[in-house]
Amino acid sequence: MSRFLSTKYNTLKAYTPGEQPRDRRYVKLNTNESPYPPDDGVLAAVQAEASALNLYCDPTCKALKEKIAEIYGVEAENVLPVNGSDEILYFSFMAFCDESRPMAFPDISYGFYPVYADINRVPKFEIPLNEDFSVDYRDYCGLGKNIVIANPNAPTGLCLPLWQIEEIVKTNPENVVIIDEAYIDFGGESAVPLTKKYSNLLVVQTFSKSRSLAGARLGFGIACKELIADLNTIKYSTNPYNVNRMTQAAGIAALNANDYYTENCRKIAETREYTASMLKKMGFEVLESKANFIFAKPKGISGEALYSALKEKGVLVRHFAKERIADYLRISIGTREQTDILISSIKEIYEEKARKEK
Amino acid sequence: MSRFLSTKYNTLKAYTPGEQPRDRRYVKLNTNESPYPPDDGVLAAVQAEASALNLYCDPTCKALKEKIAEIYGVEAENVLPVNGSDEILYFSFMAFCDESRPMAFPDISYGFYPVYADINRVPKFEIPLNEDFSVDYRDYCGLGKNIVIANPNAPTGLCLPLWQIEEIVKTNPENVVIIDEAYIDFGGESAVPLTKKYSNLLVVQTFSKSRSLAGARLGFGIACKELIADLNTIKYSTNPYNVNRMTQAAGIAALNANDYYTENCRKIAETREYTASMLKKMGFEVLESKANFIFAKPKGISGEALYSALKEKGVLVRHFAKERIADYLRISIGTREQTDILISSIKEIYEEKARKEK
Repeated sequence: MSRFLSTKYNTLKAYTPGEQPRDRRYVKLNTNESPYPPDDGVLAAVQAEASALNLYCDPTCKALKEKIAEIYGVEAENVLPVNGSDEILYFSFMAFCDESRPMAFPDISYGFYPVYADINRVPKFEIPLNEDFSVDYRDYCGLGKNIVIANPNAPTGLCLPLWQIEEIVKTNPENVVIIDEAYIDFGGESAVPLTKKYSNLLVVQTFSKSRSLAGARLGFGIACKELIADLNTIKYSTNPYNVNRMTQAAGIAALNANDYYTENCRKIAETREYTASMLKKMGFEVLESKANFIFAKPKGISGEALYSALKEKGVLVRHFAKERIADYLRISIGTREQTDILISSIKEIYEEKARKEK
Repeated sequence: MSRFLSTKYNTLKAYTPGEQPRDRRYVKLNTNESPYPPDDGVLAAVQAEASALNLYCDPTCKALKEKIAEIYGVEAENVLPVNGSDEILYFSFMAFCDESRPMAFPDISYGFYPVYADINRVPKFEIPLNEDFSVDYRDYCGLGKNIVIANPNAPTGLCLPLWQIEEIVKTNPENVVIIDEAYIDFGGESAVPLTKKYSNLLVVQTFSKSRSLAGARLGFGIACKELIADLNTIKYSTNPYNVNRMTQAAGIAALNANDYYTENCRKIAETREYTASMLKKMGFEVLESKANFIFAKPKGISGEALYSALKEKGVLVRHFAKERIADYLRISIGTREQTDILISSIKEIYEEKARKEK
């Protein structure tokens, strides 16, 4: 920290992203990426765009917005593409919250929500999850505060049914409810159709997980046009050219290959069930996930110890040093081959541990 | 505006970027893009990266930072790549200013500075340019406020010599001085070497102009490591994966082709002098530019009328509806061919006007 940093950040703790190590090749199951490459159409689209990089991108993202609108059954004016869904979450805290408008969210959820609150000096209203890590939707009904809920939730993978989401939105008409659907394509039901009915609902999605574009940085929000206009006010006051040419083209191409990604999601859901069953056989407690990761508590070894032992063996998973979930690991779903390496690595670790303890 | 937008934005006016029309092909001289395509190495680098887009980019931009450090003669810890230089300017207003730490800048300069101040509720201290549109560096010496100066300035193109920049930095040791060098490669002298001497200096540059990557969105800041650490605190509290994979690769490739871009800058400076001389022949007042645009006042026609007439003829230039500069146009320097179209279009407009007035 320099002596020039504004004192308003004295207590700010920045977000820590998952490791992206460059030291060796890992079986990388720590940041919920898709194990499948982007569609060939994406490669062609990016290549075609590269020769025009001397020209600015379209700040309105017109063609991309229209394509998203077509796929999701809304109008272009209901869509805002952004530089990764983190950006629209940040914009939302900026736009709709302030010192007198707090944001409510589950105490165990995406680790960026409290950071967004802190950097915008927005009071946090953190609601504990149930004992079984589920979100109790009744905690949010009629709350009278802005709300952000990841559905499926991270890192648990648990998903609320759509009628419960609607109850939350319906009973908080004077507040914005943000449903962060980063993982919705792996088994949950999207709230996008509800944006036509409720002017206080913002649905956030991303191309990072189901559409194999984590490295391109593309997210979007869908809401009534007034909410989108507010978020555009923030965008045009911070970084109007926020989504570059190549990413706009990649996004359109990815949407044109919808079937490819739908099939990938099906495969990932299948591998998820396989992974869960294998872990359960080894005594893990596994939460019922609708996402492209599972949240599981290993038997006879701490979460941190298993994380470290796996890393030594070249398998990266994610461990959160947060009290209530410190015994758990969040494991991204890779290919079937990656899963088999994960499972055999855990078996080895158990065997080595057993030998040492003899 | 929805009823949910925080009242703190009641008076906020967002930035209006230059037109990026899609309705027809223009000779596009309105947003200071390079008329030259990126180097072939950039195309190859982007293509190679596209197949790995399912994996997140490196949030630390390690390889890119090291390359920038190498080219600019600093260490990687002194560099922060960002999603276009707008982003680091925004970060700087966030980091170093607040209600009690205003930002000072010229009253005629990059139109985003007052917007960044307003959205961060930072008091603006706008210092009038001299009558001849030059920045008087003495206005900034010992000012005791944070300062941002575009050098060369936009939209004037006028450039301060390095010793005047140093005087400003040296005499404001308790404040951050930001030198926005978006246009430095077209004839000015960069303040980057001064970052080793002064802990309160942040130099901001971009790949958008001289390096033909406006559509890739890549800017960077160079400063002492403590200032860079502060800006990283903001980055990791807003959008850690802000520079996507393709853009990181494009940036490295562009730096590997340094000679190509240096030669392009030389050609652009040559065309700038040619354009200026042609406009002067037609009676324009032309400011002495060190940038890739010129700022000029046409004779016998208002800036707005000439802007509109040129647009009708398929030539886009930029007009600012701001009192003191409303008579002027900012004209980006294109290729020699584009310049000739510009000049002949202006001649036609003058002839048509003369015929009508007969």
